[in-house]
Amino acid sequence: MSIESKLSDLGLKLPAAPIAAGNYLPSVRTGNLLYLAGTICALDGQVTHVGQVGGEQTVDSGYEAAKVCALNTLANIKAAAGSLEAVARFVYVGGYVNAVSGFADSPAVINGASDLFVKLFGEAGKHARAAVAVAGLPRNCTVEIQVVVELKG
Amino acid sequence: MSIESKLSDLGLKLPAAPIAAGNYLPSVRTGNLLYLAGTICALDGQVTHVGQVGGEQTVDSGYEAAKVCALNTLANIKAAAGSLEAVARFVYVGGYVNAVSGFADSPAVINGASDLFVKLFGEAGKHARAAVAVAGLPRNCTVEIQVVVELKG
Amino acid sequence: MSIESKLSDLGLKLPAAPIAAGNYLPSVRTGNLLYLAGTICALDGQVTHVGQVGGEQTVDSGYEAAKVCALNTLANIKAAAGSLEAVARFVYVGGYVNAVSGFADSPAVINGASDLFVKLFGEAGKHARAAVAVAGLPRNCTVEIQVVVELKG
Repeated sequence: MSIESKLSDLGLKLPAAPIAAGNYLPSVRTGNLLYLAGTICALDGQVTHVGQVGGEQTVDSGYEAAKVCALNTLANIKAAAGSLEAVARFVYVGGYVNAVSGFADSPAVINGASDLFVKLFGEAGKHARAAVAVAGLPRNCTVEIQVVVELKG
Repeated sequence: MSIESKLSDLGLKLPAAPIAAGNYLPSVRTGNLLYLAGTICALDGQVTHVGQVGGEQTVDSGYEAAKVCALNTLANIKAAAGSLEAVARFVYVGGYVNAVSGFADSPAVINGASDLFVKLFGEAGKHARAAVAVAGLPRNCTVEIQVVVELKG
Repeated sequence: MSIESKLSDLGLKLPAAPIAAGNYLPSVRTGNLLYLAGTICALDGQVTHVGQVGGEQTVDSGYEAAKVCALNTLANIKAAAGSLEAVARFVYVGGYVNAVSGFADSPAVINGASDLFVKLFGEAGKHARAAVAVAGLPRNCTVEIQVVVELKG
């Protein structure tokens, strides 16, 4: 069963790959590693979740925001590698939560991305991770993730 | 003299490898690189240093917190590679200090981790690094580090 | 035309490589990857831009600060690799903006570094990137970047 079929079974689909918000690329390959640019919670150019967790947003809505970030990263992987099947394994997820000072639950928010990667890719979707709360994110979006995957040789 | 003997000579010992706080792995190997998950200042499940530098914590207590983070990363390296002797060299340390807005001394805090790696591994313990202050960390801990090491081939 | 000639044509020159602010190295090579340490906006030991964007600094002055960070990273690359011509390609830029809580324009600030890399290296200067606002940076500088490049084999 293909990764995109699994995505469809979850009621989700790949969005259009996001437009870069600055002078950078959506991904760069070096050896078998694909470094993805950070992706925010936006679809079709519209930010889906605005503001800080602990302010306008909650852990639960942040979890949904992280899922949107994950979909955008998947779209960038497909654009770079031709297919999601080209992923050998996920390596690293850096998770950034736009949050009020002192916010302590960034792991629960970033699980929104991690859970999706693991549901879709199984063992190959599991990754090392750091999840921190930051002072601000582009367009005042709620979550951004930055991912490194290993591609098949 | 083994790395663990050196640790013992410093009056320290490897803690139990920390339990992941979310849906992620303690480490992922790709080629000879081992990406470690972020580790916080907690031992046996208890956070050792709580709150922000510039608030409840100081640069000095943050330095001690960073040392605890380093011990947890070492425990994760041993769990992944079988032994600390498997490390060819440290490559990168990302240091995150939970701090009040405007905190300017993150390098002095993260030295608590860096100094330990260098004491234990000598030249091979030296690493590139970025140390920043963030708005919040998991469980309101004071410090988190995220490390990449190169393993022997 | 050499990279340093292009730099000169832009009215810029490589600064002295920055002194590490803690117990870390300016760069570490693993395979063909060169991990650079974070570099701040300082020249000859003096911070060029102090304080937070949204406070003492603006997006425009932050853009200039990011350019200074980029020059310092270039100095570290030359010190490690002997010449800027040794760069095969830029891989990743992590951009950290010292900013007030809720700051939403970190990409426009970090473009100050990205634009310079692309002007100098062309296609090889393009990189994946994440740009976030953080609570604080070393010496209360305005911008820090952390870069990974691939060197020629």
